[in-house]
Amino acid sequence: MSESTATLDESRTEMTELLLPNDTNNLGRALGGAVLHWMDICGAIAAMRFSNRQCVTASMDHVDFISPIDLGEVAVMEAYVFNVGRTSVDVKVDVHAENPKTDELRKTTTSFLTFVALDDDGKPTPVPRLVCETDEEAELRAEAVAARAEQLESVIERMEN
Amino acid sequence: MSESTATLDESRTEMTELLLPNDTNNLGRALGGAVLHWMDICGAIAAMRFSNRQCVTASMDHVDFISPIDLGEVAVMEAYVFNVGRTSVDVKVDVHAENPKTDELRKTTTSFLTFVALDDDGKPTPVPRLVCETDEEAELRAEAVAARAEQLESVIERMEN
Amino acid sequence: MSESTATLDESRTEMTELLLPNDTNNLGRALGGAVLHWMDICGAIAAMRFSNRQCVTASMDHVDFISPIDLGEVAVMEAYVFNVGRTSVDVKVDVHAENPKTDELRKTTTSFLTFVALDDDGKPTPVPRLVCETDEEAELRAEAVAARAEQLESVIERMEN
Amino acid sequence: MSESTATLDESRTEMTELLLPNDTNNLGRALGGAVLHWMDICGAIAAMRFSNRQCVTASMDHVDFISPIDLGEVAVMEAYVFNVGRTSVDVKVDVHAENPKTDELRKTTTSFLTFVALDDDGKPTPVPRLVCETDEEAELRAEAVAARAEQLESVIERMEN
Amino acid sequence: MSESTATLDESRTEMTELLLPNDTNNLGRALGGAVLHWMDICGAIAAMRFSNRQCVTASMDHVDFISPIDLGEVAVMEAYVFNVGRTSVDVKVDVHAENPKTDELRKTTTSFLTFVALDDDGKPTPVPRLVCETDEEAELRAEAVAARAEQLESVIERMEN
Amino acid sequence: MSESTATLDESRTEMTELLLPNDTNNLGRALGGAVLHWMDICGAIAAMRFSNRQCVTASMDHVDFISPIDLGEVAVMEAYVFNVGRTSVDVKVDVHAENPKTDELRKTTTSFLTFVALDDDGKPTPVPRLVCETDEEAELRAEAVAARAEQLESVIERMEN
Ligand SMILES: CC(C)(COP(=O)(O)OP(=O)(O)OC[C@H]1O[C@@H](n2cnc3c(N)ncnc32)[C@H](O)[C@@H]1OP(=O)(O)O)[C@@H](O)C(=O)NCCC(=O)NCCS
Ligand SMILES: CC(C)(COP(=O)(O)OP(=O)(O)OC[C@H]1O[C@@H](n2cnc3c(N)ncnc32)[C@H](O)[C@@H]1OP(=O)(O)O)[C@@H](O)C(=O)NCCC(=O)NCCS
Ligand SMILES: CC(C)(COP(=O)(O)OP(=O)(O)OC[C@H]1O[C@@H](n2cnc3c(N)ncnc32)[C@H](O)[C@@H]1OP(=O)(O)O)[C@@H](O)C(=O)NCCC(=O)NCCS
Ligand SMILES: CC(C)(COP(=O)(O)OP(=O)(O)OC[C@H]1O[C@@H](n2cnc3c(N)ncnc32)[C@H](O)[C@@H]1OP(=O)(O)O)[C@@H](O)C(=O)NCCC(=O)NCCS
Repeated sequence: MSESTATLDESRTEMTELLLPNDTNNLGRALGGAVLHWMDICGAIAAMRFSNRQCVTASMDHVDFISPIDLGEVAVMEAYVFNVGRTSVDVKVDVHAENPKTDELRKTTTSFLTFVALDDDGKPTPVPRLVCETDEEAELRAEAVAARAEQLESVIERMEN
Repeated sequence: MSESTATLDESRTEMTELLLPNDTNNLGRALGGAVLHWMDICGAIAAMRFSNRQCVTASMDHVDFISPIDLGEVAVMEAYVFNVGRTSVDVKVDVHAENPKTDELRKTTTSFLTFVALDDDGKPTPVPRLVCETDEEAELRAEAVAARAEQLESVIERMEN
Repeated sequence: MSESTATLDESRTEMTELLLPNDTNNLGRALGGAVLHWMDICGAIAAMRFSNRQCVTASMDHVDFISPIDLGEVAVMEAYVFNVGRTSVDVKVDVHAENPKTDELRKTTTSFLTFVALDDDGKPTPVPRLVCETDEEAELRAEAVAARAEQLESVIERMEN
Repeated sequence: MSESTATLDESRTEMTELLLPNDTNNLGRALGGAVLHWMDICGAIAAMRFSNRQCVTASMDHVDFISPIDLGEVAVMEAYVFNVGRTSVDVKVDVHAENPKTDELRKTTTSFLTFVALDDDGKPTPVPRLVCETDEEAELRAEAVAARAEQLESVIERMEN
Repeated sequence: MSESTATLDESRTEMTELLLPNDTNNLGRALGGAVLHWMDICGAIAAMRFSNRQCVTASMDHVDFISPIDLGEVAVMEAYVFNVGRTSVDVKVDVHAENPKTDELRKTTTSFLTFVALDDDGKPTPVPRLVCETDEEAELRAEAVAARAEQLESVIERMEN
Repeated sequence: MSESTATLDESRTEMTELLLPNDTNNLGRALGGAVLHWMDICGAIAAMRFSNRQCVTASMDHVDFISPIDLGEVAVMEAYVFNVGRTSVDVKVDVHAENPKTDELRKTTTSFLTFVALDDDGKPTPVPRLVCETDEEAELRAEAVAARAEQLESVIERMEN
């Protein structure tokens, strides 16, 4: 494991996108794929800010789209690194839909992505150890670990029915 | 449940995309999000062909990116409906990377998406029952059901370590 | 002429695109140019699959747009190589519009493109000889040759009036 | 035929595009499809300026790509209406590649597109009669008529060999 | 003037964009226009969050591009409303370039945009009064007012030389 | 200062864009940022045509959007170099909105951009001296110099109120 360290706060990334026509279907609602694309980019920036490396997406956890985002609304993605391996980092990404005319904010989805840090030859390379210097950071980390486990359990439960 | 029926074959969809610069990162490799976007569109077309309805993405299962796709390569997405609920359909989507200079074909990822059929007011509406008229269709369905269960188990296993 | 060979089947390419707002005009119908763009990419992939080379578009035959494609419909492009020169290949590309709500399939257009294979210095380089191993391949080739001649005749006829 | 008239000059349209990465292939050269897309849009604007109607592409003549356009170069499209039917207009579109570092200008292609004018219900509707008020306009019209015939002849000739 | 109020904090908007190939020129540096486009969208979201109205760009102040943004770097736009008229709001937008491999953050530009709030008929409509509830908000407002005046003076000075 | 010369006419650039859905807001009107993006590209082509160098945007003057451009309308950008420094050129860019159904032409905005010419190492490099060989060129230059000064004055005046 790498000797260097980086904090959860260094990875925090907020991305805001105005929903334009090409990101919507015939009903004027966000295409799931447009949201997935933004989640991946937001997560990748968090992973790169943390590791100071080019990162590639190794995996994305289950995604539930809880509420739609309409044309003209705003999508807000928030991401941070909450867990690290030797060469990989786990990132939590939250998406909210925001109606700028009413300030209403709706949770759209949360998921967890794993990115692998690559060196200049494109080979996996060690990432810093994750340090949480503040209570807020420690809480965010604990929150993400718990939410990930909980989401997996709910997926398992649904599959068993 | 709807009285009408549709076959697995009616849903089958093949999508081919040439990897252009804006779909790649600084290493000239596909952004995960670009691939997720194509998977969602390919799956949505399969769901619409099956249900004859506008469909929205309700969820996407875990995605593992097994091998990269490079600039100038071709991404091939293949999708079909393998399971239906009352208003929802489950779609398997496979992605392969193809190097047109060597005809090499690499499996990139497989995942399972659930789409919900909507009526003209945007409310969930019943979908046809799934019918497999040929042995090939029955096999494809069985294959998808098994692969989905297997993938979930492997996710659980990794999470426990 | 090159000693190597490749089959018509190796070149077969199917591309499926969901018609999004930016591909349509003010009436919500596909821009001709969007369809031409997809035809070119679909044909280029067929040419590259056949020749295992980077290919550039040398020419496109006359194109008649027989029926429109509407926003939210699906465009399906199908292409295969039906004739080869020393460094060039001729590709037939068919486009259909599909309404996923009715399964209706309408022929939109057919045309014939010629691509030239390039080596790594960007110079034209020999392509494999075309082999049709099955009756279906031989028929497809014959069909394309006949359709191309027929289309040219109909163009000439119209020009003379 | 419509009683109203419009001049060739009213239709003249010049479109200039900087070649960006997504419009190029792996060799950094313009995709044929990107150029076809611009030709269609440039031609459509010429047709709309002439007819004061929404116009759709009915057909495109044979296109030969004479010289490539490289990344960072500029594509210049020029279009004008040279012939009219009852509800259709014929447009000549020329494309040049320009290297802004050397001012070199290379002819890339010329083709002829037919657009149909639509009324608000999407039905074909009469277009103005074409009037050439100046000698330059009359020459441009004659040039286009001759070039179109010449191009068809050269296509026929090549097909016969 | 409107009786309703909104705070500076309600308008604050952060937008993060990964620089992709189509946003760069031949040297792999951000096109000025890509940055201007993001500044406008970021500012418009701030204006809509503040006014709860659809907003259009009425003007943009002078923009100096102090340092380039390279392919693969991240552009961070930050915006807030700092002044309001009857139907218009003034927004400060800062842009930084960030190299995720070094965490280096460079100021790229700052400018000031005016947006006009529109009602459902597209007519200018009153906006809330701006309230700064915290010292931080009051400082941000003062900072923006001063920076705008200062920038104008430096433009005047340069023009006089 | 460079010994070489170039004329105002060599720099003249006309760009025509059809307003597509992704360039518009929820009211179907052009996003200010889309127009700014086109102004920058049109200006950059004028600067490169003049200097025969890669150019980057150093600054953009104040921009007032006088009238909106609607979906389906055409935006026409016109640019020319009207002033040069040692390594920089000043470009005037005019934007008009055109309704192709009525031939109505509305002034949308005018602004002035400064571009810096770069050599192959990305360092500022001398540009040709500006020569106006015809009266029309001399007038265009004078017009731009006057319009720029006038615009600055009107900005100052508004700021003082
Ligand atoms: C991700 C990738 C680099 C891993 O390569 P590899 O040869 O398996 O590398 P390793 O076995 O050394 O594993 C490297 C790390 O990746 C992790 N990893 C590999 N596959 C993973 C997966 N599917 N999910 C989560 N983590 C994974 C490993 O656990 C290991 O983590 P650690 O170092 O923290 O313990 C490789 O599979 C790849 O290139 N995939 C494609 C990525 C891509 O291009 N995505 C975009 C769209 S296709
Ligand atoms: C998907 C959605 C329409 C479901 O609405 P709902 O009010 O929960 O509807 P219902 O409870 O009647 O469920 C309808 C079906 O959806 C299924 N469903 C709902 N949420 C689901 C999820 N997260 N994963 C899988 N299936 C789901 C239900 O099981 C039910 O299936 P069945 O009829 O086959 O038994 C709604 O959650 C939604 O609009 N989500 C946003 C979808 C979207 O816009 N995606 C794109 C990007 S945000
Ligand atoms: C901006 C616009 C709505 C103003 O319309 P108008 O008829 O001049 O409206 P009014 O005279 O009532 O002015 C409305 C407000 O806009 C402000 N305004 C108008 N032009 C402005 C400009 N160029 N710069 C800054 N503010 C401006 C006025 O000061 C007034 O503000 P206040 O109510 O806070 O005092 C109109 O000029 C327009 O539609 N422009 C095009 C906007 C657009 O589409 N932009 C995107 C790209 S083109
Ligand atoms: C523009 C840039 C190259 C100038 O670099 P520099 O080190 O200041 O160069 P110099 O001091 O030698 O100045 C070069 C010329 O640029 C001009 N210049 C520099 N900044 C300027 C500004 N903000 N506005 C107008 N002109 C400017 C100088 O006046 C000088 O002109 P001259 O040679 O005609 O007298 C540099 O600031 C830069 O790279 N900026 C980012 C440009 C960019 O990437 N834009 C796109 C989006 S971020």
